[in-house]
Amino acid sequence: MTPGASGPAATMRVSVLHEAGRLELADWPVPAPGPGEVLVEVRSVGVCGSDVHYFQHGRIGDFVVRSPLVLGHEVSGRIAAAGPGVDEGRVGSRVAVEPGAACGACAQCKAGRYNLCPDMRFFATPPVDGALAQYVVVRADLAFDLPGAVSDDDAALLEPLSVGIWATGKARVTAGSSVLIAGAGPIGLVAAQVARARGATTIAVTDIAPHRLAAALRNGATMALDARDPAGPGQDFDAFLDCSGAPAAISAGIGALAPAGRAVLVGMGPDEVTLPLGRLQQRELTVTGTFRYANTWPAAIGLAASGAVDLSGLVTGRFGLAQAEQALRSTTEPGTIKSIIEPWR
Amino acid sequence: MTPGASGPAATMRVSVLHEAGRLELADWPVPAPGPGEVLVEVRSVGVCGSDVHYFQHGRIGDFVVRSPLVLGHEVSGRIAAAGPGVDEGRVGSRVAVEPGAACGACAQCKAGRYNLCPDMRFFATPPVDGALAQYVVVRADLAFDLPGAVSDDDAALLEPLSVGIWATGKARVTAGSSVLIAGAGPIGLVAAQVARARGATTIAVTDIAPHRLAAALRNGATMALDARDPAGPGQDFDAFLDCSGAPAAISAGIGALAPAGRAVLVGMGPDEVTLPLGRLQQRELTVTGTFRYANTWPAAIGLAASGAVDLSGLVTGRFGLAQAEQALRSTTEPGTIKSIIEPWR
Amino acid sequence: MTPGASGPAATMRVSVLHEAGRLELADWPVPAPGPGEVLVEVRSVGVCGSDVHYFQHGRIGDFVVRSPLVLGHEVSGRIAAAGPGVDEGRVGSRVAVEPGAACGACAQCKAGRYNLCPDMRFFATPPVDGALAQYVVVRADLAFDLPGAVSDDDAALLEPLSVGIWATGKARVTAGSSVLIAGAGPIGLVAAQVARARGATTIAVTDIAPHRLAAALRNGATMALDARDPAGPGQDFDAFLDCSGAPAAISAGIGALAPAGRAVLVGMGPDEVTLPLGRLQQRELTVTGTFRYANTWPAAIGLAASGAVDLSGLVTGRFGLAQAEQALRSTTEPGTIKSIIEPWR
Amino acid sequence: MTPGASGPAATMRVSVLHEAGRLELADWPVPAPGPGEVLVEVRSVGVCGSDVHYFQHGRIGDFVVRSPLVLGHEVSGRIAAAGPGVDEGRVGSRVAVEPGAACGACAQCKAGRYNLCPDMRFFATPPVDGALAQYVVVRADLAFDLPGAVSDDDAALLEPLSVGIWATGKARVTAGSSVLIAGAGPIGLVAAQVARARGATTIAVTDIAPHRLAAALRNGATMALDARDPAGPGQDFDAFLDCSGAPAAISAGIGALAPAGRAVLVGMGPDEVTLPLGRLQQRELTVTGTFRYANTWPAAIGLAASGAVDLSGLVTGRFGLAQAEQALRSTTEPGTIKSIIEPWR
Repeated sequence: MTPGASGPAATMRVSVLHEAGRLELADWPVPAPGPGEVLVEVRSVGVCGSDVHYFQHGRIGDFVVRSPLVLGHEVSGRIAAAGPGVDEGRVGSRVAVEPGAACGACAQCKAGRYNLCPDMRFFATPPVDGALAQYVVVRADLAFDLPGAVSDDDAALLEPLSVGIWATGKARVTAGSSVLIAGAGPIGLVAAQVARARGATTIAVTDIAPHRLAAALRNGATMALDARDPAGPGQDFDAFLDCSGAPAAISAGIGALAPAGRAVLVGMGPDEVTLPLGRLQQRELTVTGTFRYANTWPAAIGLAASGAVDLSGLVTGRFGLAQAEQALRSTTEPGTIKSIIEPWR
Repeated sequence: MTPGASGPAATMRVSVLHEAGRLELADWPVPAPGPGEVLVEVRSVGVCGSDVHYFQHGRIGDFVVRSPLVLGHEVSGRIAAAGPGVDEGRVGSRVAVEPGAACGACAQCKAGRYNLCPDMRFFATPPVDGALAQYVVVRADLAFDLPGAVSDDDAALLEPLSVGIWATGKARVTAGSSVLIAGAGPIGLVAAQVARARGATTIAVTDIAPHRLAAALRNGATMALDARDPAGPGQDFDAFLDCSGAPAAISAGIGALAPAGRAVLVGMGPDEVTLPLGRLQQRELTVTGTFRYANTWPAAIGLAASGAVDLSGLVTGRFGLAQAEQALRSTTEPGTIKSIIEPWR
Repeated sequence: MTPGASGPAATMRVSVLHEAGRLELADWPVPAPGPGEVLVEVRSVGVCGSDVHYFQHGRIGDFVVRSPLVLGHEVSGRIAAAGPGVDEGRVGSRVAVEPGAACGACAQCKAGRYNLCPDMRFFATPPVDGALAQYVVVRADLAFDLPGAVSDDDAALLEPLSVGIWATGKARVTAGSSVLIAGAGPIGLVAAQVARARGATTIAVTDIAPHRLAAALRNGATMALDARDPAGPGQDFDAFLDCSGAPAAISAGIGALAPAGRAVLVGMGPDEVTLPLGRLQQRELTVTGTFRYANTWPAAIGLAASGAVDLSGLVTGRFGLAQAEQALRSTTEPGTIKSIIEPWR
Repeated sequence: MTPGASGPAATMRVSVLHEAGRLELADWPVPAPGPGEVLVEVRSVGVCGSDVHYFQHGRIGDFVVRSPLVLGHEVSGRIAAAGPGVDEGRVGSRVAVEPGAACGACAQCKAGRYNLCPDMRFFATPPVDGALAQYVVVRADLAFDLPGAVSDDDAALLEPLSVGIWATGKARVTAGSSVLIAGAGPIGLVAAQVARARGATTIAVTDIAPHRLAAALRNGATMALDARDPAGPGQDFDAFLDCSGAPAAISAGIGALAPAGRAVLVGMGPDEVTLPLGRLQQRELTVTGTFRYANTWPAAIGLAASGAVDLSGLVTGRFGLAQAEQALRSTTEPGTIKSIIEPWR
């Protein structure tokens, strides 16, 4: 297959999830970009916890894998073809892909909250296929041109970086902020990096795994704390970001906020969380949840290109499409932060 | 006693809480205003649930009545004397009193969040005496001049009105908002009125008492709903104000919020509240508690003077200082919304 | 012509501006709604200053009438037909029409600022036709269902009301605000009404025409002031809305702002305005311009339906399509506030 | 003189401005700290343009040097004595001094805008003396403890850093922002550094002096542009900070803003600025002035201590108190960025 000047091939390899635990390679026709769309030859796909969850359980909450599903929503690539109405000059451009297409016409979209669009079509969320394939079609405005300083792997990781940008923005992390982050998985680590990039000067990260705490210190944390330490994470943080989903961590984090502090709950966890009402009131704390992100790719590209955040240190393994299952299983290994799948291999 | 031009008398009557359930009249010396302070001859004092709680239980949480305490923090009056450094021209002015004196120098005060000042001295909060007395001394900047359109009773009720202004502000209630309010006690009712004054166009109030639901409809509510109705309060409110402290109401209210909705928890309730994590995230809901108010008296006076809110309808009984216990007990009677004590009687 | 159940007719009457000063009636085919669009039988069209400007000068700035143009962008009507993909159940609904269709995919649209979309297609702005016709086609999401309490005329005036909602929002007019408004034309009057609906308690309006000052007092102003009064409008307003475009009024208004005051420049005026730099700095004043509005129709409908604003008092004349020129010319007559054209007459 | 454990001496050397151009050394009694105050032995004082202006002209606007004035308001030192009510344990602490004492009780102070307090007492602003002295007395809450990572010189420069923090905050500079800064004097340079610390990824600085443009590139700028280049600074900046006071720069900067862009006018300039009204409206630009800062020292200390900003590179000369005039005159020399006076020498 020789994408680029010679145009895409007629078929492509795809990794398809048929049901929990059954991932198979297939040859599918290369899709054609419709009006306003581009065909992207995929370069890097980051493996996310949600991919792993679909692979293991065949569902996430109400989203059930009822028909074969392509996983993967952290995506970079190269524009291989332009659909009608799209500037042909974009063909050949290296791009990062924002994986969700909102409707653009509902009240949420018009208000700038397109992440809350009820008609969102999001990669690798049933029934919408993702990017564990040699090619994907996306709306042209969701393929963001990349400067040379942002590698293909970095560009795939602009998606989790966007989660960190969004969450730290909701938490109003700014110059001089003190921030507590629970959970040093990929999201906690990018959140710590973005907190630093926004000017936070105290960035405490809690986790229970020593290797993740060590990673935190390499990714912006000024303090790494064992989440089980009975002394707790300290006091008077301006912001708390939960990237763990653990009720005990949420409780400890909210207890560590200064008056007027903000808690942002990013990590998926149990159905319910229990919060201390009196403390919310006496300190006028704010608690909010986040759902993905909106309008973050330009900032994400800028932060990655300027070196304000460093995504390359997160990549701990690279796999071909044929090794997709191995990539998914790698995420639970101690040394793994982020596994990358390269469908072009 | 002839206050005003002839100056205050040497002693004054005061209603003193000695311990739970024991309220006694006493004659105390009229205090002298210090530098930057004024002496206020008290005209109206609203009875608040916290007064009742101190009377019944001798404490609210960590605040314990260890020595005799004067209740009352919803206060209006007339400036009877000016302390050193205060314009003598203010003597004779009708004023509403903001009952909390923050330090003005801590980080919270400097940030404009003086309600969170750790050194706040607040009327009728041990060990600070309140206003069930013929005179009180307050800092001059906490005695706000009143226009004629605001009666003495109205002026006392600018304090609960301030709670409503603050809570609706935190909830970002604005033109066209749809607002759900749980609890039609005095705070719920003023919140409904302020919501209307801010331009909210749907104002649903829930309660379990028919007479309070009827009061809601007289105080700004566009809908009054039985809180026990299994159909729930409906959907897609922009803001939810809990003025009930009831866990079931909080849960129902948060469940009724539209994407990006704000819940503001005003009512004091149990130690903990349980919130639906997934819904907070998928809808990016915000939950915050409020603690009193800051910088609300000018707006409160404006709203009362313009008629945008009507406080007179809240007053259901007036009592002299000698009837303070009766006034406190009246608050649990079905017809009572707000009882007023007039120490000058 | 019998719209509704029997479907729209094949042709419709249209008022067409061929060049400055030349307005002619024509019979055009009734357009067919495309996918996601609806056909609206027009009921009321408000005449706006921009319509008058195009009629008189054939241009507004860079927007030049090069080919025949249909004027009119303040529009209400009834859905006469639904295009593909639109719920047929909407046919027959009374609707207010938001007259600008933004692209939904550019950075401004995605950020919730669709009014700044560079690809906006706006009624009666060359080369996009407006609504001085018996029918118009609009995107279904731009036709907002109306409650019975909002008349056809009111519904047309939700467009200027939206300007007032947007401008007062930018000015952060809220409960207790003191607001100065320069210019008591239709925009100044709706701005005054919305300021009142948002809880502003001092609303001073300046103008030079006595009949407009009188109108201001009927539309929310608490004070009406001669703009030429050398004493100026007073001091310490929280917000200033210029709805006049007059440099002297802008200068006076900014000079009347309190510390941290906001000036919002709504009125179109000369190319440049001169502002007092030292005062902007010493008082940390904010000056912003507004361009139309975004996401205002739901609030506008709510305010009109609840009676928080009253648009009916603005209508001073009604005209048929054949009298469109007369309607346009009426706007400069002293008694005129808002002229309505009813194409169904 | 041996401050510290042995207590301050009885007299101190002071540099006193008697009138424009006449600066003299004097021996004054060491002041005693009053209640809530501390005596600070001054370590470093940065020379600001306003000091130079008072020295040269004897006035800045309405502030006129009518009686002998001590200059200097960028101050660090060591607490030499604690007044009544101040923790004695603070004696010996290294501190940065915030040079303005607001009243804490006016509406501006209570709203968190103490920089707009009408009763502000600010160092080196007639009739309030500044810090070109061996000792100064300040309110204890305005003397901020320093970590070891912040040197005495750095600590003095937290004052101009605060100007940069405040201005970039008003401009809402955040992760991914593109920022244009006019003027590469000390304020422009710290603004560039803070912009970088907040995550701005494009930071263009304009000036006309090559050595200042070179300094810009060492202080956070990603681009340094000749302000006279007819091509202008480019387009579509999210924020523009004027640190030049030059009308041409202000005009160019506002013309370079993207839709919804913010212009913050920091530099003192002519009485009036002329702004493009149509562009303010069509792009909904916001223009604001700034006056000093509020609540910035904690963030300033954090940024300096963490290395997110580097103030040491700004210091180009150090002088004793006897050389104060030489220090003031140095500021116009090409190589000078910031001159420091060390009264203890």
